[in-house]
Amino acid sequence: MTDRIYLDWNATTPLRREAREAMAVAWDLCGNPSSVHAEGRQARRLIEEARTSIAGAIGATSRNVIFTSGGTEANALVLKPGLRRSQGAPVERLVVSAIEHASVLAGGQFPAVAISAVGVTRSGVLDLDQLRMALEGRPPALVSVMLANNETGALQPVAEVAEIVHVAGGLLHVDAIQAFGKVPVNIGAVNADLVTLSAHKIGGPKGVGAVILAEGLLGFEPLLRGGGQELGRRAGTENVAGIAGFGAATEAAMAALNDDPVRLEGLRNRLERGLRQAPDIIVFSSEARRLPNTTLFTAPGLKAETAVIGFDLAGIAVSSGSACSSGKVQPSHVLEAMGFGPDLAQGAVRLSLGWSTSEEDINRCLEAWRKLADTLLRGG
Amino acid sequence: MTDRIYLDWNATTPLRREAREAMAVAWDLCGNPSSVHAEGRQARRLIEEARTSIAGAIGATSRNVIFTSGGTEANALVLKPGLRRSQGAPVERLVVSAIEHASVLAGGQFPAVAISAVGVTRSGVLDLDQLRMALEGRPPALVSVMLANNETGALQPVAEVAEIVHVAGGLLHVDAIQAFGKVPVNIGAVNADLVTLSAHKIGGPKGVGAVILAEGLLGFEPLLRGGGQELGRRAGTENVAGIAGFGAATEAAMAALNDDPVRLEGLRNRLERGLRQAPDIIVFSSEARRLPNTTLFTAPGLKAETAVIGFDLAGIAVSSGSACSSGKVQPSHVLEAMGFGPDLAQGAVRLSLGWSTSEEDINRCLEAWRKLADTLLRGG
Repeated sequence: MTDRIYLDWNATTPLRREAREAMAVAWDLCGNPSSVHAEGRQARRLIEEARTSIAGAIGATSRNVIFTSGGTEANALVLKPGLRRSQGAPVERLVVSAIEHASVLAGGQFPAVAISAVGVTRSGVLDLDQLRMALEGRPPALVSVMLANNETGALQPVAEVAEIVHVAGGLLHVDAIQAFGKVPVNIGAVNADLVTLSAHKIGGPKGVGAVILAEGLLGFEPLLRGGGQELGRRAGTENVAGIAGFGAATEAAMAALNDDPVRLEGLRNRLERGLRQAPDIIVFSSEARRLPNTTLFTAPGLKAETAVIGFDLAGIAVSSGSACSSGKVQPSHVLEAMGFGPDLAQGAVRLSLGWSTSEEDINRCLEAWRKLADTLLRGG
Repeated sequence: MTDRIYLDWNATTPLRREAREAMAVAWDLCGNPSSVHAEGRQARRLIEEARTSIAGAIGATSRNVIFTSGGTEANALVLKPGLRRSQGAPVERLVVSAIEHASVLAGGQFPAVAISAVGVTRSGVLDLDQLRMALEGRPPALVSVMLANNETGALQPVAEVAEIVHVAGGLLHVDAIQAFGKVPVNIGAVNADLVTLSAHKIGGPKGVGAVILAEGLLGFEPLLRGGGQELGRRAGTENVAGIAGFGAATEAAMAALNDDPVRLEGLRNRLERGLRQAPDIIVFSSEARRLPNTTLFTAPGLKAETAVIGFDLAGIAVSSGSACSSGKVQPSHVLEAMGFGPDLAQGAVRLSLGWSTSEEDINRCLEAWRKLADTLLRGG
């Protein structure tokens, strides 16, 4: 894969060196972290160190961090009736934004009749008036709004959402999976009741995630039961190496948070200027605050699948909107929620950048685009 | 940890070299297996190769293998009302053996009132008459019986169980987590409808498991929903490296299955003869067919926690019964089900062997035992 250019960091991020090193150390520990012998205690220590790293990065206390097998399990674990604050009533229904990830739209343990969706603007930002209407005069809801959309990169007004939700007696879950490591995320600043994270989106391993609970949240029930791991909140032998890798990736991502976003935004903006050389280019959510590394664009006539294959043959890995599913290109539910018709919603190409993306990568991507654009847009 | 002797292979097995190598290869693939670009397709290939390995090892077809985050999730995923054969009625209740793992006893998605337990003999083997009685004239049940008990190593008569269960119109789940890699396991020979596995019990990584479905099983519903991964039966970005490690560990374990069990049984038997030099030693399930690598023993007055610490200080990692939970020593529900009182059920020490266990390890363990036994048994 020499000379390949990887511009699909939002689908998954290459594994960080720091994560590899931490995982290789964990591999040598043969103990089960629940075992009381020295080998078990060493494995336990790695888990607790990672927990401290993640708690620190997000401004939580360690005991409120629960490790899972990834973002999907984390989202399934938090979306459950019965959560409450000590002074509040348990939530009975789920309100999601229409642009949430499929694992949130699935609704966790809420029955389908107890789930409703709130729309977004043409820029892909949650419509706060619609949210207010969805909450007013109804039983307490768990509201799930992502911090940044994985397709457009649009940042959501989660602090305002939190205020609206709490005034209405509800609770807020923030899926920070795509935002974590790309912009600062603090559970207290957002005033979220639950936050979910995924390791592989920040350069940790695939197959690890976390739920972070706000202090004082009650009614949290496990999805996986049996052993007493994770203080009884998630049974099953821990993925020790994966968790250690998540911790190390978190430390590395936090250290890079001062410089990477500025540099990436510069590269991303240059990329967008280059793309716009072709006629009628639409960059989605460009009017909104966005993640610094993400561009989702299309043009009339562009077919995402053909474009992804064209870029791939030119040595460049890009994505057609969300890539978390079966590999099939379907119309993006995010773009549909933003009011774009099936033609445009099926034609969006996502370019996402990361720490090793260079100016040269952007130049080569634009060069490929210039060669491809004529053919790809001919259908329009 | 130089010179440490690890005799706790049933809690978790050291990571095999073959698994490490496969995982290191996977680390270099930055693609999401759902992505259509070259990086994604490479990651996908590793998963499908592992799936083929595991299907082959257990005599299933690849499409019937579903990867999970471990044995606990695999067990939670299969224990659900509604499963059925094309000609049969959906199962409505769950019947478990009293010696199942905590993740099975938790009952998955079955409500507590729909779960009942069947007892075992003094040797720790399922009581087939009790099973027949539990099934006769009642609505169809999913029956969950492990192939080998993790504490005693006692092998369960799963083929006979399958016949009884199927005659009664039920379905059989076999938790083969502790048996896989230690004795041959074939889904057809057992005639099980569902089998669950865990990677870290065979020298694969922690945090990976699998469900294997028999051909023609219907009504299987996902626990994690969202993306279309695992043919829609388990959403979430796959733990690519972990799955690759599971596949490689499976291949290695199968290759070792001709020689290791005979060698380990010889060492285990010598270990037991040595332990019995102390007075009044009880080796649990010694009258039953057992895994070749497992010894669970006690003596009047022996305190498991003290014994584990004593061995640990002598440089030997051993376990006090099941170690899958919080690190606390509680009376073993397995020994209680076998009819032993709390004193003995709290005093059991498990020694479990694996491929790198040597004669010298056994000698040193027995030497430590001779020094410890006097002190440890003094309470009796």
